[in-house]
Amino acid sequence: MLLSILLTTTFTASAQPEVAQWKRFELTFTGPSSGNPFTDVELKATFWHTNTHDTIHVEGFYDGDGCYKVRFMPTILGRWNYRTTCNIPALSEKSGSLHCIPSDQHGPVRIKETHCFQYADSSSYWPIGTTAYGWIHMPEGIRRQTLSSLEAAHFNKVRMCVFPKYYTLCKEEPELYPFPIKEETGKGRTFDFSRFNPAFFHHLEKQIDALNALGIEADLILFHPYDKGHWGFDSLPMETNLAYIRYLCARLSSFSNVWWSLANEYDYVKAKTEDDWITLIKAVRTADPYGHLCSIHGSTATYFPYWMDELTHTSIQDEAPVEEAGRASILYNIYRKPVLLDEVCYEGNLSSRWGRLSGQEMLHRIWQGLLCGVYVTHGECYMRHEGNDTIFWAKGGPWRGESWKRIPFTRKIMESLPGSLQMADVSRDVRTATTGEGCYLVYFGKEMRDTWMFNLPAKNASYPPLKPGTKFRIEIIDTWNMTITPYPDIMETGAVSDYRLYDIHHRKIRLPLTPYLLLRITKVEDAL
Amino acid sequence: MLLSILLTTTFTASAQPEVAQWKRFELTFTGPSSGNPFTDVELKATFWHTNTHDTIHVEGFYDGDGCYKVRFMPTILGRWNYRTTCNIPALSEKSGSLHCIPSDQHGPVRIKETHCFQYADSSSYWPIGTTAYGWIHMPEGIRRQTLSSLEAAHFNKVRMCVFPKYYTLCKEEPELYPFPIKEETGKGRTFDFSRFNPAFFHHLEKQIDALNALGIEADLILFHPYDKGHWGFDSLPMETNLAYIRYLCARLSSFSNVWWSLANEYDYVKAKTEDDWITLIKAVRTADPYGHLCSIHGSTATYFPYWMDELTHTSIQDEAPVEEAGRASILYNIYRKPVLLDEVCYEGNLSSRWGRLSGQEMLHRIWQGLLCGVYVTHGECYMRHEGNDTIFWAKGGPWRGESWKRIPFTRKIMESLPGSLQMADVSRDVRTATTGEGCYLVYFGKEMRDTWMFNLPAKNASYPPLKPGTKFRIEIIDTWNMTITPYPDIMETGAVSDYRLYDIHHRKIRLPLTPYLLLRITKVEDAL
Repeated sequence: MLLSILLTTTFTASAQPEVAQWKRFELTFTGPSSGNPFTDVELKATFWHTNTHDTIHVEGFYDGDGCYKVRFMPTILGRWNYRTTCNIPALSEKSGSLHCIPSDQHGPVRIKETHCFQYADSSSYWPIGTTAYGWIHMPEGIRRQTLSSLEAAHFNKVRMCVFPKYYTLCKEEPELYPFPIKEETGKGRTFDFSRFNPAFFHHLEKQIDALNALGIEADLILFHPYDKGHWGFDSLPMETNLAYIRYLCARLSSFSNVWWSLANEYDYVKAKTEDDWITLIKAVRTADPYGHLCSIHGSTATYFPYWMDELTHTSIQDEAPVEEAGRASILYNIYRKPVLLDEVCYEGNLSSRWGRLSGQEMLHRIWQGLLCGVYVTHGECYMRHEGNDTIFWAKGGPWRGESWKRIPFTRKIMESLPGSLQMADVSRDVRTATTGEGCYLVYFGKEMRDTWMFNLPAKNASYPPLKPGTKFRIEIIDTWNMTITPYPDIMETGAVSDYRLYDIHHRKIRLPLTPYLLLRITKVEDAL
Repeated sequence: MLLSILLTTTFTASAQPEVAQWKRFELTFTGPSSGNPFTDVELKATFWHTNTHDTIHVEGFYDGDGCYKVRFMPTILGRWNYRTTCNIPALSEKSGSLHCIPSDQHGPVRIKETHCFQYADSSSYWPIGTTAYGWIHMPEGIRRQTLSSLEAAHFNKVRMCVFPKYYTLCKEEPELYPFPIKEETGKGRTFDFSRFNPAFFHHLEKQIDALNALGIEADLILFHPYDKGHWGFDSLPMETNLAYIRYLCARLSSFSNVWWSLANEYDYVKAKTEDDWITLIKAVRTADPYGHLCSIHGSTATYFPYWMDELTHTSIQDEAPVEEAGRASILYNIYRKPVLLDEVCYEGNLSSRWGRLSGQEMLHRIWQGLLCGVYVTHGECYMRHEGNDTIFWAKGGPWRGESWKRIPFTRKIMESLPGSLQMADVSRDVRTATTGEGCYLVYFGKEMRDTWMFNLPAKNASYPPLKPGTKFRIEIIDTWNMTITPYPDIMETGAVSDYRLYDIHHRKIRLPLTPYLLLRITKVEDAL
């Protein structure tokens, strides 16, 4: 699906190619393969829109075998011109143009109204992601299975590592490494960290494109601590880390579905200080001309200074904010950016306490976050054969659990809402969320009841307060069993009594005495 | 108790005066009283320590009646020299010295180890404050009563406004205003905002000194929204706000017990933007040469960007973090500075939901914070005679409630601890706090039980994990009834089982089936 124009070093003008908005335009040049082309050749290109004069500077990269590439993601419809510069004259001053045409894709995910997301084409995006750290490093059969699993569950984001993972539950050697092997001995292998292995990156790119075809954002983890001397990727010199970031960004910034996650459990990476992480974050922001979403993830309850301007959202590991109703609002209120909780423990059967939630509890924590306007990432770690299993969280593969089956239904409910959610009466009513547009969600979580007296808070976030005489219809949603049952009666709010509005007849809603119920309460017009 | 050296404009050297460390040294000069001495005369002084060469630049101020003052708080023992500069030659180049001698006071409160406080002399300070916004604007009888109340309750911090408060529950006109009255009509009064009223500031200073004599920090609120056109102090031009900050800091920075609170409910002050607040915060930090503690307070769940370097601690209004056990740790983990929750609702009998906690609930919320290493401010609002009462939170006066009586006991428990508190196994065990030094607190809150199986987490914050074979004695503390009951048996930890260590005999502690119990669990040596 990629438009690739092969150009020789004796550049010749070609017909103006068409590129769909937010897809990839790629220029290929042939150049020297001697010396160290990864560091010796500095190829750059400038793209500018002929009407708006928007200008994007991109870096080219060496792709092996004397082949140099420049990639570009056109962000605005219409004609773009480009010109290269290079310290090798043969690759410099190459120019041309392309025509950006409407796309069938939504484009990259952007921030919307401080706490939410949307695609570049303004369509809404509610992140419901999962975790498969090492899936791209598994054999092809497992990778295919992983993609089917992700598709079946309708996840729209996956956390995944660039570097392979060496950890109790995942110790396979990958077929490909990001750096060329220098020496292979019985004890292991050493790498040439002054070069990259293009085959590895071709493989990575193929997986990211496969995710894109399924509408899934690749939340790409650039560093992680699960190595500890095995390959040494967690303790590279800073110069190598920075070269790796530049190379990765040169290759991948033109992929619309890439997010940058600087690290998983950054504080467990013993070779890097917080100042190092800040340097690396800034390097990503400099190297990526499109401003892809960017964050970093710590160990349990370790909060990076997420207020850093360069970070677009949080990527927190902490279950505390979603263990009680309404509490994730503390994060929503503190951070002036979207709040992602990328680990709140996972569904699974491990003995480790981070991997032994029931499916119900996993889904419940996702809902506890959603009601507060924050986003909770799923993960599944079921071990069937001790140490020799395709536990999804580590390797991908087939699902074993129960919560993933509820994700399509969860997304359907969220995507039906007229706007983003937040607590209607923050810190005072912990289970009523509002979209501000005559639509509320009330979530009961584990509390089972046979009736609920209809009542809503007068306060409605920063929207106008709820008025007496407002009529509502109600649907009883069983988030676990995935049923939506319209309630037969229309409720009507009376006068405000101690900050709340009850039905004028103080009617109660009959409930089925099951857990994980959600009420969708929608304003109806008088005509009904 | 103030050392005041009266100097005429024809300056003469006096004998080197002695000033106790962190107390006030004051120079007085006579100068012009014509024109506008508040703005026309720019008097400054530099103090430098003759050995360490520490240098402190202070601003002088006009105190009315042709009298100019320079105040200085010596921070280091030994000899300090000083020299003035002024745009009025008669007040310039005045020089002299003083000798700083040991003090009987602790000095200003400073940050200790990121999340805690200590006095300048390194003695520990656990803030347990209360709220009396308008107390200094009340008649003398009430003020005297306020000071006795504060003393009886052993509070060591009080939130109080510089400007008088005009609010439903507090509408008295004060005797003194910070600005001179320009015109007084039947409809109200107008002020000359280009000048200050020294009598008002003399009065304010006397109250701050009276607090200091009781060991109470004055958490001074510089701006607030409770005015709304009545006097106009909430909507002064920025130039006046900045002049007021300079004047206040020139007068008060030498008071060791002053904290700066830029605002109460800053977001309700409609005439100021967040950028204005940032400007004002920076102005305070510039005008105060000693770096007194500095924060700002918002309305419910409105979190200022407390990560600003210029803010030394948070001053949050939100009850959400202390409604469940352990949840205040979210704030502790996010902010890299001490966390103060300066409003979590108050004890009282108001119809407003922020002022109707029981005494038990008020104290309970204070303890919920303390266990997580954060500090919760008390407040009391009992209304007896509708609209004509000395509700403490607004005006000071006598206590009416119940929680204040427990503050001396609460402080005694906290001050007995060998170190600061934090959750031992954060986000996983919500009721066990550790000091890291063989001392734990386990708080049961509202949960009543007749036994508790002795067990502690293996994880002990960032300290070495708890070891099997450790012996502990236990005291059962009733935080409400203020009793401490030693438990007869010594417990001994066995092997780690699923992250916890139980007594080797799996013994249970008998408990009295009452709420608000706290266990103090202290390591004992084998000899016992």
